Amino acid sequence: MAKDFATREEDYSKWYNDIVLKADLAENSAVRGSMVIKPYGYAIWEMMQAALDKMFKDTGHENAYFPLFIPKSFFSKEAAHVAGFAKECAVVTHYRLKNDEDGKIIVDPDAKLTEELIVRPTSETIIWDTYRKWVKSWRDLPILVNQWANVVRWEMRTRLFLRTAEFLWQEGHTAHATKPEAMEEAEKMLGVYTTFAQEFMAMPVLQGVKTENERFAGALETFCIEALMQDGKALQAGTSHFLGQNFAKAFDVKYLSKENKLEHVWATSWGVSTRLIGGLIMSHSDDSGLVLPPKLAPHQVVIVPIYRKDEERIAVIEKGKEIKKELERVGIRVKLDDRDTQKPGYKFAEWEFKGVPLRIAIGPRDLKNSTVELARRDTLSKEFTAMEGLKEKVLDLLEEIQESLYLRALKFREDNTNSVDTWDEFKDIIKNKGGFVMAHWDGTSETENKIKDETKATIRSIPLDYEDSEEGVCIYTGKPSKGRVVFAKAY
Amino acid sequence: MAKDFATREEDYSKWYNDIVLKADLAENSAVRGSMVIKPYGYAIWEMMQAALDKMFKDTGHENAYFPLFIPKSFFSKEAAHVAGFAKECAVVTHYRLKNDEDGKIIVDPDAKLTEELIVRPTSETIIWDTYRKWVKSWRDLPILVNQWANVVRWEMRTRLFLRTAEFLWQEGHTAHATKPEAMEEAEKMLGVYTTFAQEFMAMPVLQGVKTENERFAGALETFCIEALMQDGKALQAGTSHFLGQNFAKAFDVKYLSKENKLEHVWATSWGVSTRLIGGLIMSHSDDSGLVLPPKLAPHQVVIVPIYRKDEERIAVIEKGKEIKKELERVGIRVKLDDRDTQKPGYKFAEWEFKGVPLRIAIGPRDLKNSTVELARRDTLSKEFTAMEGLKEKVLDLLEEIQESLYLRALKFREDNTNSVDTWDEFKDIIKNKGGFVMAHWDGTSETENKIKDETKATIRSIPLDYEDSEEGVCIYTGKPSKGRVVFAKAY
Repeated sequence: MAKDFATREEDYSKWYNDIVLKADLAENSAVRGSMVIKPYGYAIWEMMQAALDKMFKDTGHENAYFPLFIPKSFFSKEAAHVAGFAKECAVVTHYRLKNDEDGKIIVDPDAKLTEELIVRPTSETIIWDTYRKWVKSWRDLPILVNQWANVVRWEMRTRLFLRTAEFLWQEGHTAHATKPEAMEEAEKMLGVYTTFAQEFMAMPVLQGVKTENERFAGALETFCIEALMQDGKALQAGTSHFLGQNFAKAFDVKYLSKENKLEHVWATSWGVSTRLIGGLIMSHSDDSGLVLPPKLAPHQVVIVPIYRKDEERIAVIEKGKEIKKELERVGIRVKLDDRDTQKPGYKFAEWEFKGVPLRIAIGPRDLKNSTVELARRDTLSKEFTAMEGLKEKVLDLLEEIQESLYLRALKFREDNTNSVDTWDEFKDIIKNKGGFVMAHWDGTSETENKIKDETKATIRSIPLDYEDSEEGVCIYTGKPSKGRVVFAKAY
Repeated sequence: MAKDFATREEDYSKWYNDIVLKADLAENSAVRGSMVIKPYGYAIWEMMQAALDKMFKDTGHENAYFPLFIPKSFFSKEAAHVAGFAKECAVVTHYRLKNDEDGKIIVDPDAKLTEELIVRPTSETIIWDTYRKWVKSWRDLPILVNQWANVVRWEMRTRLFLRTAEFLWQEGHTAHATKPEAMEEAEKMLGVYTTFAQEFMAMPVLQGVKTENERFAGALETFCIEALMQDGKALQAGTSHFLGQNFAKAFDVKYLSKENKLEHVWATSWGVSTRLIGGLIMSHSDDSGLVLPPKLAPHQVVIVPIYRKDEERIAVIEKGKEIKKELERVGIRVKLDDRDTQKPGYKFAEWEFKGVPLRIAIGPRDLKNSTVELARRDTLSKEFTAMEGLKEKVLDLLEEIQESLYLRALKFREDNTNSVDTWDEFKDIIKNKGGFVMAHWDGTSETENKIKDETKATIRSIPLDYEDSEEGVCIYTGKPSKGRVVFAKAY
């Protein structure tokens, strides 16, 4: 592969796009704003799904599936919810095509729906309409359900993985007898997301709650994790909502309590999406392409055979197969690139760009010396190492790479987090440096909006220990503040 | 659970519906024709997905994801395809809602799409529009891609799992350099489906090809597997299509061959859906409810503790946990039903109705005697057995149940397959007995249609060895026939 991609310095936005396209992760489709997730990108999503799904099940959740379409009237039932989602949705109005007199395909005007259907932007309404049938008594609670699904939000400005009209996600929807139980659930899932982001994606995140402005439409409290990307912008990586009794009231979901009283049910919802792949890319990748943390890499090791003559080819591929088998026996995911249609140099460049954590090259001389060449993607360093003990070495290295990617990203975040006490300094840092800015704020939406208008920075989150930390005065109004909140420009 | 469900004899159709609803598999939703797949039903689908996905990957396929929406114009590009699908599709015409003067939510007339979008009924068109960008030379072939997705077909008469407006499925879409390679792929996937149906679902199937009438819209050849349900009707359980160069020509997908010539690419597509759950139910279930083959049962064993006093409860649950752990260690999926809110009798009935292959009951006396009560769902037989060696006994029984369900279904099919040589006998059997009817046919769509009009029976498939078997004369026209084909009434 020729060097035909941008560096971060040259053009961060093009760098990101080049990685998505040239590492074969995704591409734009013929449908405005909808992407095609290519096999390599989808394999990363499958790794993410497997890890998350296990964590959901380990915390007592089950999967289910609810309809793609939601009757329009359902959206009117929860006032805040419709205000948040009505502006950006795909509407199904007809159910048939036909040929017109010229044989052209047109929408059949006789096949108009009496009530339009909305392609789900999120499923609270259809799910709470269903839960009404599932809940009679306290014995039916809690309901701990998750759904893996596609959703559609009619975004005007889209970007591969980060913001697309259609995306894939999971949405958990739980129902509880009491407020504390629901709150505990919302916090528990924030914890699951945090663990996933940090331990699997190697992406450090800040936990917090959203301000009223940034809260999910219909939630009483939105918990979130926020990560810092390499251009100094924040990415919301997952949210968990305490919905109170809003949806239970809108859809009339009540249960008979142990005390024989009819009560409304308490709710949470929580989700992460294919947007995480965008976060993964921007957390670790460098000017040589994608860098994948071993735990989410579809191939953790790629083996590239080096040969000239046919008999060399047979011997090194034979050895490659042997090593592959040995590594796979301890659970390592290995790709043997035995394509005869490409030269080793091309393969090196390709797998480097695709972010495979470790590359093993074997040539005829290695066979003689019982060595291999081992290259690390994160540091781009190479070394010769003995074939004996290779398995242990690879296992250690994969762990080391996972850890060191996390620490590198954590250091980046720490280097790009500033506590700021004056409005001038705030504006300067937001404009010229970016990153997370910890600053005092007077707690009003009015001030939050003014700061956003003047600097484009938003409050990413209010830290969970907000009220226990230092008091101060708002950088913008000078009014009292209970603690510092996290500002940043955001994706 | 009280006996409040229909038997097959009383009302087959109600029996089926009762199982779906009362075994908590699925239910109708507020959206016409769209079902909610409940956690227990979805867990069966997850078991099916896991088994199929592994088989797809073992045969070299990768997963990817393509857009939900397809531009209307794409459908016009393949003539047979549009004729087959245009009649039954959901059409997105607008992308925004708004409040009218009275505050009511309406579709915003200003947000009309310039080109309507079709919610995918199947993805050949959008995928082949994408493959055009992926294929340049013979080196880019084959493309072996599968997608797990939801699709929508606007069915007028729907039935849970068997025929719903929205359903879940997988659709494989492959691209090949040559016709023999594509044909080999289509046949290979028919083999995968056959293995899955017989070895996992314990559902015997007939392999064959569809007549022109029944072929997939856009295919040159449709391979299929057909299963026989307990009411004597056939269920199409999976199809694999050889698409020739139809879609490559419609979407201009060409490759440069090794001989440096531009050639159109050859295609296949193949799919199975949540309809299989309907087939699973109707293959094995009985008048006591659902019967699940062990390989697809979310819980292969349920343990029900029996107790009166609190100290008994603690002891039997302790033992239950121990047994669960021991069985899980050898990969058995075990549910310990330790709910204190329901009596053992209720639990017995519930898990029996939900088709769990084996039930283990443990009471205080069992603790004393070191025994358990072991009940088989398929035969409804019970026995006391020693705790020692329980693990091996359970493993053996699960295998035996899997095998015996298959043999029972096979015997049912054999008992309900008849070779018929006269038109009167044909009409009589189709009307009064059902099942598969092997009969000679003159090979014309005209005769096929007349038989369908008169008897409602269709040609389910032409056996793969059709031309190598006996010749004869058409039961309807008396014209020459090359071999017997399979007739039945079908779902």
